Amino acid sequence: VGVIGHGGVGQGVVQLLEERRELLTRIGGPFTLVGVAVRDPARPREGLAPGLLTTPEALLADPRLDVLVEVAGGVEPAFRWVAEALRRGKAVVTANKALLAERAEELESLRRESGGRLFCEAAVAGGLPILQVLDRGLLANRVVRVEGILNGTCNFILTRMERERLSFAEALARAQALGFAEADPGLDVSGGDTAHKLAVLASLATGHPVSSRGLFTEGIEKLTAFDLQWAEAHGLRVKLLAIGRFGGGRMELRVHPTLVPKSHLISQVMDEVNAVAVEGDLVGPQLYSGKGAGRLPTASAVVGDVAQALRGERPLGARPQEEGGPWRVVPMGEVVSRHYVHLEVVDRPGVVARVAGTLAAHGISIASLYQPEAAHGSQVPLVFTTHPAPDAALTRALAGLAAEPFLAAPAVHVRMEA
Amino acid sequence: VGVIGHGGVGQGVVQLLEERRELLTRIGGPFTLVGVAVRDPARPREGLAPGLLTTPEALLADPRLDVLVEVAGGVEPAFRWVAEALRRGKAVVTANKALLAERAEELESLRRESGGRLFCEAAVAGGLPILQVLDRGLLANRVVRVEGILNGTCNFILTRMERERLSFAEALARAQALGFAEADPGLDVSGGDTAHKLAVLASLATGHPVSSRGLFTEGIEKLTAFDLQWAEAHGLRVKLLAIGRFGGGRMELRVHPTLVPKSHLISQVMDEVNAVAVEGDLVGPQLYSGKGAGRLPTASAVVGDVAQALRGERPLGARPQEEGGPWRVVPMGEVVSRHYVHLEVVDRPGVVARVAGTLAAHGISIASLYQPEAAHGSQVPLVFTTHPAPDAALTRALAGLAAEPFLAAPAVHVRMEA
Repeated sequence: VGVIGHGGVGQGVVQLLEERRELLTRIGGPFTLVGVAVRDPARPREGLAPGLLTTPEALLADPRLDVLVEVAGGVEPAFRWVAEALRRGKAVVTANKALLAERAEELESLRRESGGRLFCEAAVAGGLPILQVLDRGLLANRVVRVEGILNGTCNFILTRMERERLSFAEALARAQALGFAEADPGLDVSGGDTAHKLAVLASLATGHPVSSRGLFTEGIEKLTAFDLQWAEAHGLRVKLLAIGRFGGGRMELRVHPTLVPKSHLISQVMDEVNAVAVEGDLVGPQLYSGKGAGRLPTASAVVGDVAQALRGERPLGARPQEEGGPWRVVPMGEVVSRHYVHLEVVDRPGVVARVAGTLAAHGISIASLYQPEAAHGSQVPLVFTTHPAPDAALTRALAGLAAEPFLAAPAVHVRMEA
Repeated sequence: VGVIGHGGVGQGVVQLLEERRELLTRIGGPFTLVGVAVRDPARPREGLAPGLLTTPEALLADPRLDVLVEVAGGVEPAFRWVAEALRRGKAVVTANKALLAERAEELESLRRESGGRLFCEAAVAGGLPILQVLDRGLLANRVVRVEGILNGTCNFILTRMERERLSFAEALARAQALGFAEADPGLDVSGGDTAHKLAVLASLATGHPVSSRGLFTEGIEKLTAFDLQWAEAHGLRVKLLAIGRFGGGRMELRVHPTLVPKSHLISQVMDEVNAVAVEGDLVGPQLYSGKGAGRLPTASAVVGDVAQALRGERPLGARPQEEGGPWRVVPMGEVVSRHYVHLEVVDRPGVVARVAGTLAAHGISIASLYQPEAAHGSQVPLVFTTHPAPDAALTRALAGLAAEPFLAAPAVHVRMEA
């Protein structure tokens, strides 16, 4: 076994390969850690014999290597290493969702051509074995729906915004102080990380490689404490959801903040916890939740895959491709849902008429409307929800309102799921 | 593939083997349904070609049989059939938790001796692949805790008792009318079915065969609408939980009604839905929920196992036995928890003194006490909760109170989990 990467997860993997050696040996037979590849092998690392430190190239060329663990992250050069290992007939274990999501088709071709084994349970929801559930556990089912809270940072921020009435910036700072958000939280709060994970889930659910390129993605940066409070008061919660719907050769794939009724189990998943709601056509709705990140949860998924690789188990991919090739992704504009919109307006005559008129002009039916009393001429929230309407209609209506002089801030638009 | 049993699940299996033939063939290769064994093969069955109907003996002797599906239920003669099939080197797929739980050690020996493959995902929580999660998904973890709502009938009854303030008998009748409870609900409401499933979960969690014989089991029959309402008012819910705790060569295994804080995700699982909370030493707490019974959910788990058997996959049992042989089961009397006790007493001088004195004499510390005002001499509930105390102490104290003339009904005792 060789490991590329010695960040948090890599350190956890090296630690568990040693601490759980007896267990792993009983499962998969005896093994040796042949090397840990890092950027600068000359710099000593705590807890690692200097002889173990090596470069990715030297590790890949090591004839003793049977199982490569790739926990370096990033798309390149990780793709090159993984491709090289698969071509050489090594088993590969990776936790790299960016790699899996952005190079889905190429990795699938590589796997088919090389017959190499690629294990990736750790890539989505850390220690929660959701990929195995989709691939093996629900094998006889058609998976018709997947909804996930897949980014612990975002769920932590939304929990704090709701519970402590913090702004997005305040909650992000809190998350960073507590170690639940990185110094550069861009990929997390923008929804990009969630989109990577949705692509991996969709691949396992459909049996076709699904790329995250072009996948509709909105982050949580524009949400305000007001939106979270409004939701709370209306029996709802805002969650950053990855949503996949599958059927009839079509799939909806999207990542955006979503209003979910509190009566749904997934809305009860708080703080940094992850959750995936799955619906199979035979088993009905199911929910899986657990910690999605962290050194040891993620490392334990990697090491579980290593044990299966050593034991000669087949990797995921049991679900065969249905005929008809990859499914058509429904363009976001065609997706129909209910919508919540929060405008900050300067209270003056004709504002409500103008907003309502614009919605009517785009064929959107208002379901509820709310504006508190305020001093005439001051700034005030104007909130409306709609009956189901195509995303394109709502987007066009909001674009039509964007230039209105009474608009004091950009609109907050949150899609609603029943 | 041959099937023994043609009840609800058996019919679902035969239906799915046909409906999903294309999918199953792509996973495991082509297959033929060689026979469906029933008690009386002479009686025609709707939707089954008469030539398929056979006896278990004839099916087992059929040289074409590779995979036996046992969905007849019951311990005997199912054990005989399954043992015979394993000895003949057939793969066996069963949904029979009673068989697995009551003959755990014998089946384990048989599997080892015969090298036969035994698949059993459908035995616990129907379509929820919780056994695979414990066995494979958390392979690198030590499973330290399992808590399950494993009987949909009981959870449905408790939900109705809480929400509609029904008595146990009324809620049971409701469940029967809606098809959520059998005409003879004994094995469900007594906790026996849950105990079977706990034994199977514990086997997968520890890697040692665990029998349900002698496992501490209490049902929900004694609960009253008052208890459910009291819980509701105190931020708690009553659930029939299967509880397993594992560590240091010891395991706690018990099934009983349990007070759980509403803030715990598992307490939010309502109606006929099942759920399993699992804690791995590396991944922390996780929750899995979904429909636990029903023809198609259960049949889909059976058929998923059939596909894996046809594909040549290994059955569950990846988790190797730790050294030191089977773990010691902690006697129920030694288990420490908080307790809720509801007495119906005739209000007269000295009652509280007598109850408090008895508890004190057994070293039990009262945490809270509640008795509403009532007309002197009339019947009134007296409720107390305790600080953590050994089960044996509480049981002895209640036995000491049982003969008191002021007691108007048997005590209701519910253990509390934090």
